[in-house]
Amino acid sequence: MSAPAGHDTGLLAPVRAGTPVEAAVSDEAWLQAMLDAEAALARAQAHLGTVPPSAAALITELARAEAFDTRRLALAARETANPVVGLVQALTRRVAAHDAAAAEYVHRGSTSQDVLDTAMMLVAARALRIVRADLTEVTDALGTLAERHRDTPMAGRTLALHAVPTTFGLKAAGWRELVRDAQDRLGRVLDGGLPVSLGGAAGTLAGYLQYAALDTRDTPGAAYLDRLVDAFAAETGLARPVLPWHALRTPQADLAAALALTAGALGKIAVDVQFLTRTETAEVSEPAAAGTGASSAMPHKQNPVLATMIRTAALQVPALSAALTQCLVTEDERSGGVWHAEWLLLRECLRLTGGAAHTAVDLTRGLRVDEARMRANLGITGGQVVSERIAAVLTPRLGRAAAKQLLTEASQEARHTGRPLSDVLAAAPALTGHLTATELTALCDPARYTGGAPHLTDRALEKRATREAT
Amino acid sequence: MSAPAGHDTGLLAPVRAGTPVEAAVSDEAWLQAMLDAEAALARAQAHLGTVPPSAAALITELARAEAFDTRRLALAARETANPVVGLVQALTRRVAAHDAAAAEYVHRGSTSQDVLDTAMMLVAARALRIVRADLTEVTDALGTLAERHRDTPMAGRTLALHAVPTTFGLKAAGWRELVRDAQDRLGRVLDGGLPVSLGGAAGTLAGYLQYAALDTRDTPGAAYLDRLVDAFAAETGLARPVLPWHALRTPQADLAAALALTAGALGKIAVDVQFLTRTETAEVSEPAAAGTGASSAMPHKQNPVLATMIRTAALQVPALSAALTQCLVTEDERSGGVWHAEWLLLRECLRLTGGAAHTAVDLTRGLRVDEARMRANLGITGGQVVSERIAAVLTPRLGRAAAKQLLTEASQEARHTGRPLSDVLAAAPALTGHLTATELTALCDPARYTGGAPHLTDRALEKRATREAT
Amino acid sequence: MSAPAGHDTGLLAPVRAGTPVEAAVSDEAWLQAMLDAEAALARAQAHLGTVPPSAAALITELARAEAFDTRRLALAARETANPVVGLVQALTRRVAAHDAAAAEYVHRGSTSQDVLDTAMMLVAARALRIVRADLTEVTDALGTLAERHRDTPMAGRTLALHAVPTTFGLKAAGWRELVRDAQDRLGRVLDGGLPVSLGGAAGTLAGYLQYAALDTRDTPGAAYLDRLVDAFAAETGLARPVLPWHALRTPQADLAAALALTAGALGKIAVDVQFLTRTETAEVSEPAAAGTGASSAMPHKQNPVLATMIRTAALQVPALSAALTQCLVTEDERSGGVWHAEWLLLRECLRLTGGAAHTAVDLTRGLRVDEARMRANLGITGGQVVSERIAAVLTPRLGRAAAKQLLTEASQEARHTGRPLSDVLAAAPALTGHLTATELTALCDPARYTGGAPHLTDRALEKRATREAT
Amino acid sequence: MSAPAGHDTGLLAPVRAGTPVEAAVSDEAWLQAMLDAEAALARAQAHLGTVPPSAAALITELARAEAFDTRRLALAARETANPVVGLVQALTRRVAAHDAAAAEYVHRGSTSQDVLDTAMMLVAARALRIVRADLTEVTDALGTLAERHRDTPMAGRTLALHAVPTTFGLKAAGWRELVRDAQDRLGRVLDGGLPVSLGGAAGTLAGYLQYAALDTRDTPGAAYLDRLVDAFAAETGLARPVLPWHALRTPQADLAAALALTAGALGKIAVDVQFLTRTETAEVSEPAAAGTGASSAMPHKQNPVLATMIRTAALQVPALSAALTQCLVTEDERSGGVWHAEWLLLRECLRLTGGAAHTAVDLTRGLRVDEARMRANLGITGGQVVSERIAAVLTPRLGRAAAKQLLTEASQEARHTGRPLSDVLAAAPALTGHLTATELTALCDPARYTGGAPHLTDRALEKRATREAT
Repeated sequence: MSAPAGHDTGLLAPVRAGTPVEAAVSDEAWLQAMLDAEAALARAQAHLGTVPPSAAALITELARAEAFDTRRLALAARETANPVVGLVQALTRRVAAHDAAAAEYVHRGSTSQDVLDTAMMLVAARALRIVRADLTEVTDALGTLAERHRDTPMAGRTLALHAVPTTFGLKAAGWRELVRDAQDRLGRVLDGGLPVSLGGAAGTLAGYLQYAALDTRDTPGAAYLDRLVDAFAAETGLARPVLPWHALRTPQADLAAALALTAGALGKIAVDVQFLTRTETAEVSEPAAAGTGASSAMPHKQNPVLATMIRTAALQVPALSAALTQCLVTEDERSGGVWHAEWLLLRECLRLTGGAAHTAVDLTRGLRVDEARMRANLGITGGQVVSERIAAVLTPRLGRAAAKQLLTEASQEARHTGRPLSDVLAAAPALTGHLTATELTALCDPARYTGGAPHLTDRALEKRATREAT
Repeated sequence: MSAPAGHDTGLLAPVRAGTPVEAAVSDEAWLQAMLDAEAALARAQAHLGTVPPSAAALITELARAEAFDTRRLALAARETANPVVGLVQALTRRVAAHDAAAAEYVHRGSTSQDVLDTAMMLVAARALRIVRADLTEVTDALGTLAERHRDTPMAGRTLALHAVPTTFGLKAAGWRELVRDAQDRLGRVLDGGLPVSLGGAAGTLAGYLQYAALDTRDTPGAAYLDRLVDAFAAETGLARPVLPWHALRTPQADLAAALALTAGALGKIAVDVQFLTRTETAEVSEPAAAGTGASSAMPHKQNPVLATMIRTAALQVPALSAALTQCLVTEDERSGGVWHAEWLLLRECLRLTGGAAHTAVDLTRGLRVDEARMRANLGITGGQVVSERIAAVLTPRLGRAAAKQLLTEASQEARHTGRPLSDVLAAAPALTGHLTATELTALCDPARYTGGAPHLTDRALEKRATREAT
Repeated sequence: MSAPAGHDTGLLAPVRAGTPVEAAVSDEAWLQAMLDAEAALARAQAHLGTVPPSAAALITELARAEAFDTRRLALAARETANPVVGLVQALTRRVAAHDAAAAEYVHRGSTSQDVLDTAMMLVAARALRIVRADLTEVTDALGTLAERHRDTPMAGRTLALHAVPTTFGLKAAGWRELVRDAQDRLGRVLDGGLPVSLGGAAGTLAGYLQYAALDTRDTPGAAYLDRLVDAFAAETGLARPVLPWHALRTPQADLAAALALTAGALGKIAVDVQFLTRTETAEVSEPAAAGTGASSAMPHKQNPVLATMIRTAALQVPALSAALTQCLVTEDERSGGVWHAEWLLLRECLRLTGGAAHTAVDLTRGLRVDEARMRANLGITGGQVVSERIAAVLTPRLGRAAAKQLLTEASQEARHTGRPLSDVLAAAPALTGHLTATELTALCDPARYTGGAPHLTDRALEKRATREAT
Repeated sequence: MSAPAGHDTGLLAPVRAGTPVEAAVSDEAWLQAMLDAEAALARAQAHLGTVPPSAAALITELARAEAFDTRRLALAARETANPVVGLVQALTRRVAAHDAAAAEYVHRGSTSQDVLDTAMMLVAARALRIVRADLTEVTDALGTLAERHRDTPMAGRTLALHAVPTTFGLKAAGWRELVRDAQDRLGRVLDGGLPVSLGGAAGTLAGYLQYAALDTRDTPGAAYLDRLVDAFAAETGLARPVLPWHALRTPQADLAAALALTAGALGKIAVDVQFLTRTETAEVSEPAAAGTGASSAMPHKQNPVLATMIRTAALQVPALSAALTQCLVTEDERSGGVWHAEWLLLRECLRLTGGAAHTAVDLTRGLRVDEARMRANLGITGGQVVSERIAAVLTPRLGRAAAKQLLTEASQEARHTGRPLSDVLAAAPALTGHLTATELTALCDPARYTGGAPHLTDRALEKRATREAT
């Protein structure tokens, strides 16, 4: 059975196909979130006495996505440029079929944007919680890798070349720190409060006030509005904004920023894994399961597919996020188009990033590290990887400039002749009497020049422990 | 019936929900295009005698998307980071169920990227033809508007303010010219030749050559490869590339550029329509159909929903297009991730732009123009809209600087007092003897200062006629 | 005197030409910041006893940008792809000219990225403080506008059309809230701590440790590194990072996000001002100074140039910010290119946003509001702007659907005939007996339907007072 | 001597510091181009008899950038949001100092955008010619590399792993093809015609017509306008547009697209070079000159700085280009801000791309290729790199599925045991009798499985020859 026309099934998005976040931001999930917003609004109004509790209860009961046809609503949305108008009509009909009087209270005093924006925040909050849980597993796995490889020397590489030694523990600790930054930024957005949207037709809440006046035969003061927003926030579990934010799009920009950082952080890990996986380097490999990583043409390949998928998210999310942030520049009390452009962009940012986080759990948990290969690679420059150290050691004896010049020349000779740097140096007239062969050999051992790497790893991991204890 | 989990139905994308281009780029359409590529490859090989014609015919017959489950293929794609491996397995099983020997010839010598890239080009070509047809209707409609309003004066506006008069005909002719540019750029991409992809595992075509040797018990020379590419191009209707382009992504970059230009061109029209629709301006309005443009809260509104939807595409496509273009920077013979990131980006560019083009047909055909309101608005600055002209007329009499200074001061006075500029000027001592009241009144008539607008409109339309006659 | 070849003088960037932030991020400012980093490093090492205090003092004294030729350094940077190598040579020569021994301690144990990244943070911190001060003036000015216009009714506009009434006070309070969000996000970045960069050649700090061992003839333990980072942070006034962050680019991503939000927030204000300035609307105007806003062709124009310039920043920064965020995806311990691509992007984000903030001070302080025109515009729909209200009032009498239908039809008639909505309704048979003409007139007064706007304005302003009192 | 405050000297942009394109797009170059536009306009009007030839000659003579202070003009531009108003004043004063009557003809009938847009096209055309010349050198160098290494086998790599063999000749031919695509796209833009801008205050050319009437005491018809545009185009060497394009920004979008493609194409080469340069791979190295590629910390390093710099351009230009393309969506006859946002973006796209092209000449001319290392690397998988081939050979004997399965298992065993694939296969019971050891050894030689690579290289190079012969 192929997909219905116009349906996307994730065929072009392996990074998120079938992941929990995909379901959490699907069309059906958005639809349910819009219905949740409508139901929460009715309950909030009931709580304040302007809607009959029975009506709110019936609306809540009937506000189930499975009762609606998302494709039909999608098609109907072309008439009004948003799906809420059609949904309100369908929900009203559905409620009316049970109780005509209750149907009068559907979407009472409301506007499409209140419903859609609140739904957007619900969807985002639900998705972010999933992402956060996955990121916690990723940091745990990276913490384990960092601990285990605290003292595993490997080549530190800069501008494509061996620079000085480092440790795999420090590399893993760095990845972990980056993911923790992402968690922190997502946490700020999620805990700081994704807000309900409640503004009415143009952000003054006038419609809510007007209906409240009619429904209570009273003139509710401004305090009513505060209580309504509070009740709506309580019913949805979202935060209370300072002002209606139909045209003040900080929540979207904050989400965009945190998601771009998260996708980028995971992308950094992915490209590092790819580099270390390369056939010539082969210091790490992805976890292999039967069939995973297979090629359609080449039986020998075990492709790093997890890193590949994660990278696809990292390549897309920053651009999508920028387009979403650009939507801050929106005119009037509601733009015709700038608001509407946010929906797809936010959804794709959420599910690509969430898919990448989910994929990163598998990658970091199962990553296989080849210590012997790291050690072997560290040796391939014949000691040049510690030229910095030798230059330092010679500096007090020769002066810094002369020491550096000597090392530069010796390294060139080592590169061209293929001889180990220690041999070239041992034969250098300028060094006669300065360093013994034994000293040179010791100095040239890359494993003895990892500097503060183990210590830094400890510090980064302790910091976690400390924080977690708090 | 709500959508299956993970399915998108277009709920968040009114600009393209239900439009022809949406179906043309759906998951099912991509699946069919991949199958088309597999079938075409088998037929091309049969044509060259390396695959039995009956096998090619059977593969072609069974390569129908409706026989496959796109969602299952999407989920399976997580194992290999692309959907082709799973599809080849499924297709092979399906063919084998009819004829085990024929199944040996599915995907013979091929690689995932050959199939997916060729499918991408097929999808793009099919979508672009739809877009192009819609753009032709848009330019026709705009041509009609330009002709009809060749002499309809309206305010030309710059930096938000009335500048000098123009005509609505010139504005429509400008929109049309922009859309014609888009058509031209899309045409270059489409006619210049979206290429088949045929490179084999790493762009050397070695697999195809190897199987040909086995299948013919001969050693086919390089000429075989040329013939294979030619035959594959002929079978798919795509163009022949100079080289395999697995890692040379000009086709995607060309598509990205042409689609961004198209979306931007349509976006320009949309924002102009929105500006002219504003309640205070009200010079144009969108075609109204029952229910279209309705608001969930405000019964009086007739929202410009077509322009709103078009604008959503214009806000998203340039960013998506940039991310797609960035994929030019891809390493090796095939990147792990950079290639895979293209798919969603290109699909969304195609369907957002295509949806916008489809929507623009309705917008431009049905646009209602209020000439009286244009004329009335032209009068609201009390003649200041022609200050340039009066400054020019006074220049030979007063010198340019003095003339401009006089007009600047008179305009300020007119703004502050609300008096017509002609009255202010009539009372200006510096002008005594220079201009009669009658002259002033004539000079201040905005409708007499449309400059070359009608002529330019003619030229732009004639140019079309000339080109079409060719 | 024209600019030297290759020099930019701000000719293409009016939004920031001559503003304080421009000077704070100029090439000379970056050069000074790199020199500040070198000097701070020497002092930190002196503090820990590994560099002679006199050497650190001399390095500090001579590390003045005016002594170096930025253009020559720029040209030399092509040899090494960064300007630090050349700068270190020049600084060393300069120090050596005074004291050859001291010159040995320039850049001791360090690497280009430590210096450049630390300089980047110093430049960013200095620029952000300027931006923040300007934003404070903007929020003050907006607070004043919001208070003054708490009860000034104006049309609320959605999708280009009059929706329901609002107040200018609420609009200004909304702008202010958005700017406060920007201040908050910038504050997090600035106060949360832009970090020093100290990692040495590949992030292990090995070089620093090695030189410390030589300089102290001791084997400093890992604790030395902690003290070194602390001392460097203290000397620069920057924060202490958890780990060396050569390839962990959260600081840049945080800056990118906060700057994009700020530029976007200011851009929202700018486009709103432009919309309200339009000739047909004319509800606000920019402060006029002699010559400001002049056109080269049209003497009558007083262009909204401040909003224009602010908007240029809002159109560029999100894209630049996305490219900067994308640099999170960087390979190895230091990428060849990804790191280097950050510099221009960050600088331009800083100065465009800073220029926009500076410009926004003038805009918001001097904005002129035409209350009478707001009131007049509110009347141009003949009462349709309160159709929501009338629908609500009729709902208990007619049912919601019937009430909305009635208002939809009456509004259409009002639009087509140009009659006030109250007149059309007064004549509607369906309303006979439901509403008196007096009731209708009162209901149709837009100024009586501003809902919670004044209350919301108070709340937003009180919140500020409360926060400031804390 | 440090840079004047606010001046950029290229310190943060090694990729273009001091390159010819940098000078061609500097502030001074833009200033000269604006002056060229003013002078060309005067001469065009003189040619048509509406400006005295002597005035046009004097304006032309005095329109020299070195006589103006770009920084002062930059600062003055804040008053009007563009630099033309101030420039026209300064030029007028300068002309008036020689001949007051001639000064009346400066900028006659014109508007800022005509001058700035025409200048932008002049600057772009001048820069593109430089870029094109550099790209020609790049393609020549790549052609030489492709020819020389037509038969040099190396590993083809996909998803980070050895896939099947290819040749370095084919790789170089692919790079060349990509650069040729870029040349072609730039050529279309440059030869197809960057247009003069001539529209007057709001695109109707009314001011030009009005002054012509005054200057000729006649009523010039629309034909005058055609002749004026023709003459202006002739004087500037630019093309003639169909319509004034103040708000129809195809030229910018075309430039943006072509430059993004060019930067991306060069970026592809740069990352490939970086990958091949990596210490473990070491198949190519950048040309070394004394001092080039040096590190501030590590004497042994010879960093690939050319590739590094090129990559910085490739990382920035697509985003800048997208922001420029987005400026298509511009309101009215001239936007307040959208137009103004183009200038910096286009300039940076031009000089980053141009700098990258210039740098690529050095890179491709001097690239050193280590054939022995390529051959050695090809061997490191012990024959697995030809698993596709062996699977093919076994297919007729075992069936495709069984053959692939056998190779998958044998490859795994080879990977885990470190034995050559041919040994593992030789011992495989399933193969007994199918392949002799000699056959296996021959099959497993990677150098014999380069497929069509040499032929494809020939074809790509022949195509050039053919085209050049035409």
